[in-house]
Amino acid sequence: MKREAAFGAEPQGTAPRRRVVVDLGARSYDILIGPGLIDAAGAEIVARLPGIRAAIVTDETVGRLYLTRLSVALRAAGIEHVEIVLPAGEKTKSFEQLAHVVDAILAARLERGDAVIALGGGVIGDLAGFASAIVRRGMRFVQVPTTLLAQVDSSVGGKTGINSPRGKNLVGAFHQPSLVLADTALLDTLSPREFAAGYAEMVKYGLIDRPAFFDMLEADLGGVFGGGAARGEAIRVSCEAKAAVVAADEEEHGSRALLNLGHTFGHALEAAVGYDAARLVHGEGVAIGMVLAHRFSAELGFCPPEDADRVAAHLAAAGLPVRIGAIPDAPLTVEELMRGIAQDKKVEKGRLTFILTRGIGRAFVANDVDPAAVEAFLARELDR
Amino acid sequence: MKREAAFGAEPQGTAPRRRVVVDLGARSYDILIGPGLIDAAGAEIVARLPGIRAAIVTDETVGRLYLTRLSVALRAAGIEHVEIVLPAGEKTKSFEQLAHVVDAILAARLERGDAVIALGGGVIGDLAGFASAIVRRGMRFVQVPTTLLAQVDSSVGGKTGINSPRGKNLVGAFHQPSLVLADTALLDTLSPREFAAGYAEMVKYGLIDRPAFFDMLEADLGGVFGGGAARGEAIRVSCEAKAAVVAADEEEHGSRALLNLGHTFGHALEAAVGYDAARLVHGEGVAIGMVLAHRFSAELGFCPPEDADRVAAHLAAAGLPVRIGAIPDAPLTVEELMRGIAQDKKVEKGRLTFILTRGIGRAFVANDVDPAAVEAFLARELDR
Repeated sequence: MKREAAFGAEPQGTAPRRRVVVDLGARSYDILIGPGLIDAAGAEIVARLPGIRAAIVTDETVGRLYLTRLSVALRAAGIEHVEIVLPAGEKTKSFEQLAHVVDAILAARLERGDAVIALGGGVIGDLAGFASAIVRRGMRFVQVPTTLLAQVDSSVGGKTGINSPRGKNLVGAFHQPSLVLADTALLDTLSPREFAAGYAEMVKYGLIDRPAFFDMLEADLGGVFGGGAARGEAIRVSCEAKAAVVAADEEEHGSRALLNLGHTFGHALEAAVGYDAARLVHGEGVAIGMVLAHRFSAELGFCPPEDADRVAAHLAAAGLPVRIGAIPDAPLTVEELMRGIAQDKKVEKGRLTFILTRGIGRAFVANDVDPAAVEAFLARELDR
Repeated sequence: MKREAAFGAEPQGTAPRRRVVVDLGARSYDILIGPGLIDAAGAEIVARLPGIRAAIVTDETVGRLYLTRLSVALRAAGIEHVEIVLPAGEKTKSFEQLAHVVDAILAARLERGDAVIALGGGVIGDLAGFASAIVRRGMRFVQVPTTLLAQVDSSVGGKTGINSPRGKNLVGAFHQPSLVLADTALLDTLSPREFAAGYAEMVKYGLIDRPAFFDMLEADLGGVFGGGAARGEAIRVSCEAKAAVVAADEEEHGSRALLNLGHTFGHALEAAVGYDAARLVHGEGVAIGMVLAHRFSAELGFCPPEDADRVAAHLAAAGLPVRIGAIPDAPLTVEELMRGIAQDKKVEKGRLTFILTRGIGRAFVANDVDPAAVEAFLARELDR
């Protein structure tokens, strides 16, 4: 369902570029991966969307680092644009900031054929993407993800949205970008903790249905963290894996739910610490959640216990937490976690839906998990 | 592209029901038209969406008249629901009220498979529909339109949205309902002015591409205004006409723009009076706008002047204004109107797009209209 191609020699010199095509018929689009892409953004956008004007949406932190470079690249390609700079952080994914971004786009008199360009991590991508989905009932959208998490996960697949006081990502739209530019050189400024958080989502693709990719990550963990070719290739495989799932089930009526491996437990953990990033960021919650999903699957007799141990060992080697007890200041209770699980939006008609697994690379959607079994399992895990 | 069928004998007795199918593949849906449908709402919804829960969204005026009846009908069919009652009026189509409705839907813990039911006119339908499009990235949506304008226009076709301080309907989504229940008996409580405003949109379908329908309206104006079979049939033809346009171009990339016949001038007039409904409601703006579109087309040599006169005579007979000078307290200027036209969202890449016509039932999209010609035409019209 996916094609890939070496991207050929480019003005950036000999730096290798990789390409993944997200295959959605008339709405198909390219993900370009490689160092220096931010400086080629204008040319790549103009080649696909000639004549457009644009609004760059970014946050103060990322803006300080990269906004000028992106702006120069757009100007060089003749793309007239405005800049919308927001406060950094998860709180920006609010109705209030959405209204602000929408107003700024309209103030610039952009039209349906023009583009919103998200320069930042998941928060900016989700918010800017949602704004582009609803201004004039849908504008063009381009992603320039600046974190590993955004490059391998949130910038691919068209989920956009904001948070509600009642939960994360409860308001949004499916709106596919026209282009994703993943500049891998930008990852060099990430903290190790932030890189590891994105790495958890890469591991997830191996665990869902690509056991050979998991083997590769196990074999070359140092190479992927070190940058260079191994990192670029791991990002490419991750995007390809996500693109394949999205192409098969764009609006999550079925198999796309596999991408939630580790996320039901992970979201419950994030909620239980009040989304306090000092204690737990999303990728860390997913890391613990994936280990729990494997252990729970092992308890239920689906998954070999050795596979669960292997997953935990690899994530720990990557510097990620793998037990609930590893969360700082975490005397969490079963009740808190069960409440988080029940509120998770993957609940359908009151039954618990979990992504379980038969082993590494063999995840499946289970629609009818017994809440009592989850509760008993969590009670034991809290004592680990 | 459309099918229709007599709806057969129903528990409501012998009142005739009509059905129009909006043909959008997997997202096709029924529009049911007839007296007493509000009392059958529960049964009709359950037959299509078994097991759902719902949120009824309405305004204080409509709620006082019909909320209890709809609620009783849902309860009788076993549909658990909450009620969300908003202030009446165009100001309700705001980000603030959208956030309020979204929060109330989430507070009721409705899921993606559950439904938002809009009970009201265009404001409620647009706002509730938009909320249903973005809560959990898309819930089910049912329309129970209570005005003629909503029954023949805004409830059909999936355009949802809110206003921005920078203009009307600038923020929204395409989100098709699962069912539209047009209870024609509810129209009996409309004021003559409100009925006439909806009637302008009915005439529009004749003018776009159904000259025989225009003939029918001319021949039986009294019957349509009087209620009964002629009114039901005219509503059915109108819904069928709109459904055909929508099925051919759901997201307005081309021919759907024909539905804007009379609307570019009409929106400019509404904007020029500051959306003061005491001076001009939407349907009245459209009535004047359609006359202007025919006269302008005649000036440009496209349309026989007799056709323009015939359109004006029929709309005047229906009690609608047909000259700019008919707007109360209206010393409007060409500059104001041109500003409104330039801001209209049908502007693409700076050129003026108008719906022009070669005569009754022969409208077409003109993408490259000269602003100077429009300006000169409006100057003459202001002197009429």
